[in-house]
Amino acid sequence: MDLKEFRSFRERMNERILEAGNLDIKRFFALDSRVYEDGALPTRTKELLGLVASLVLRCDDCITYHILRCVEEGVSDDEFLETFSVGLIVGGSIVIPHLRRAVATLDEVRAAAAGDQAIGAGQV
Amino acid sequence: MDLKEFRSFRERMNERILEAGNLDIKRFFALDSRVYEDGALPTRTKELLGLVASLVLRCDDCITYHILRCVEEGVSDDEFLETFSVGLIVGGSIVIPHLRRAVATLDEVRAAAAGDQAIGAGQV
Amino acid sequence: MDLKEFRSFRERMNERILEAGNLDIKRFFALDSRVYEDGALPTRTKELLGLVASLVLRCDDCITYHILRCVEEGVSDDEFLETFSVGLIVGGSIVIPHLRRAVATLDEVRAAAAGDQAIGAGQV
Amino acid sequence: MDLKEFRSFRERMNERILEAGNLDIKRFFALDSRVYEDGALPTRTKELLGLVASLVLRCDDCITYHILRCVEEGVSDDEFLETFSVGLIVGGSIVIPHLRRAVATLDEVRAAAAGDQAIGAGQV
Amino acid sequence: MDLKEFRSFRERMNERILEAGNLDIKRFFALDSRVYEDGALPTRTKELLGLVASLVLRCDDCITYHILRCVEEGVSDDEFLETFSVGLIVGGSIVIPHLRRAVATLDEVRAAAAGDQAIGAGQV
Amino acid sequence: MDLKEFRSFRERMNERILEAGNLDIKRFFALDSRVYEDGALPTRTKELLGLVASLVLRCDDCITYHILRCVEEGVSDDEFLETFSVGLIVGGSIVIPHLRRAVATLDEVRAAAAGDQAIGAGQV
Repeated sequence: MDLKEFRSFRERMNERILEAGNLDIKRFFALDSRVYEDGALPTRTKELLGLVASLVLRCDDCITYHILRCVEEGVSDDEFLETFSVGLIVGGSIVIPHLRRAVATLDEVRAAAAGDQAIGAGQV
Repeated sequence: MDLKEFRSFRERMNERILEAGNLDIKRFFALDSRVYEDGALPTRTKELLGLVASLVLRCDDCITYHILRCVEEGVSDDEFLETFSVGLIVGGSIVIPHLRRAVATLDEVRAAAAGDQAIGAGQV
Repeated sequence: MDLKEFRSFRERMNERILEAGNLDIKRFFALDSRVYEDGALPTRTKELLGLVASLVLRCDDCITYHILRCVEEGVSDDEFLETFSVGLIVGGSIVIPHLRRAVATLDEVRAAAAGDQAIGAGQV
Repeated sequence: MDLKEFRSFRERMNERILEAGNLDIKRFFALDSRVYEDGALPTRTKELLGLVASLVLRCDDCITYHILRCVEEGVSDDEFLETFSVGLIVGGSIVIPHLRRAVATLDEVRAAAAGDQAIGAGQV
Repeated sequence: MDLKEFRSFRERMNERILEAGNLDIKRFFALDSRVYEDGALPTRTKELLGLVASLVLRCDDCITYHILRCVEEGVSDDEFLETFSVGLIVGGSIVIPHLRRAVATLDEVRAAAAGDQAIGAGQV
Repeated sequence: MDLKEFRSFRERMNERILEAGNLDIKRFFALDSRVYEDGALPTRTKELLGLVASLVLRCDDCITYHILRCVEEGVSDDEFLETFSVGLIVGGSIVIPHLRRAVATLDEVRAAAAGDQAIGAGQV
């Protein structure tokens, strides 16, 4: 639910902002998508980079977004924990409250995915 | 409503803090008002400075406060968007969640003002 | 209640994180406790250091935690206010929203303690 | 001289980076120029926004760059000081070392301009 | 020598800034001195607060200044190290380069003081 | 040469700090090494995480250190540039001065390596 609210507010406001007609903001938003595309580094690695950067800058919404993307890219729990540990050591104990919320978010995403799968299985 | 809560908590706690009797905190609060007064630069420009500084430092409450003040100073939507775009380019994608909330706040302030005006018109 | 939620989420997620089995995170959490223990500087002073660091880094949860610990260490209201004033001057006006919440938290902690004492007295 | 070094290193490395062939970085650099162009707000105001943002984020090179641009835009000493004062109150005493260097840079830019003018006068 | 340069640049620019005639900046500078004066907390503790705040905000000049003041207040090496350790755990590994410079500065200050004492002894 | 100074100051001060006898600082330094070791994520990826985290937190020494480590891990120029581009988009234009120095450092490291290889080739 929290995740649903996050997604719906995010989508609604992104649309609102892009429609507002400021070209520089639009270009920045486009650039912000492009930078995570496959290149010399795969999207998966770039999403981990985005996640750790969000963690040390302590931006909860950015962390949530990159967790969602990393799950889509098949990042495992151990890989998440090691990314979190790098963010924690680099950023220090002030990262901890964000780490708590990050792990709670990851748990919620995994639970939702498990529920979807159960429903999916049931639908067969 | 969110804005009302923001204002009432802000006023209540400012009063509480100023009554607590710490002279240095009181002086800082006084200074924090004075610095936005008309001088070589007009208050309007200084409020835009306060807004962009709040944006790159990612302080939602500060952003809300300066949006309210900028609206009082007659800042237009395009001027807001250009100030936001400077803050976004300087501060990067981690500013985006705060930008979403800033635009939502601005929309709320504009809607409230429109409502007041409608009521005002009705009162004639 | 807010404080209760803070404490229960904090404890639940800390447990969850420590059980997740990442050794580096576990070690960091252990270190994060040890660093506030009595040494050349008493725990009391170290908790004030933790509080001011949390204030200038603008981490509400960290501020709440260190306020709780400082109250346990017998820090007086004037000592709190002076610590806040140092954090405010060092960190600037963007600290103010966190200062408001810090004072509200301190008031809540003091009120809860007063309530407990009244109950305690009543129990005799 | 310091300013000369700053400018030559800046130009050399910007060229080096743009030639390196990463399209996203190139696009960001282009966007970083465009955002200060005249619009609803004039370039002059946007450069003041860039200056105060650089001050509170404590980026000496960014401060130097925007001082140079603001001087080109005819910003007066009093306007500089008021912009600095907003940055100082918002960002706190940790801004002071950057303020010292900012004022030293401004003095250097003004002195160089005065020297150029004297030479220019002599050339008539 | 580095310390001498630091002190002379600091004093020269502070004077330059205070003479520039911006009242808000002057008031902030006055406030920045007053906040470390003896109160409910002694100056010594407040200087430790200023030091840890400077460390987690990674401001080398602020760290140098508070080390100089803490030495004047008789802070021992172990007390310095414990203050540094709190700053390091709170702020994370990005504090380390500043910690290296802080310890080098402290060594330089202690060496200068020892030299002064030796000279002083010789003068008797 | 700059790199040599960086390395010699870094090694000398790390040794000095570890010998100073503060156990918490020692433990943190140990943890700071361990966190980049091979695990679910390889060291190579973790060093990229450390690099992007250092970039968005704008810590030049940390950037230099992780560039050196990434070169040892065989990171290609294109991979460096893409990591830089993520850091730039996430952290904004205030990252640019650090990006300039990062690219200059990388060039210096590559040139030194090429020189070593030439010498190595000559030694055969």
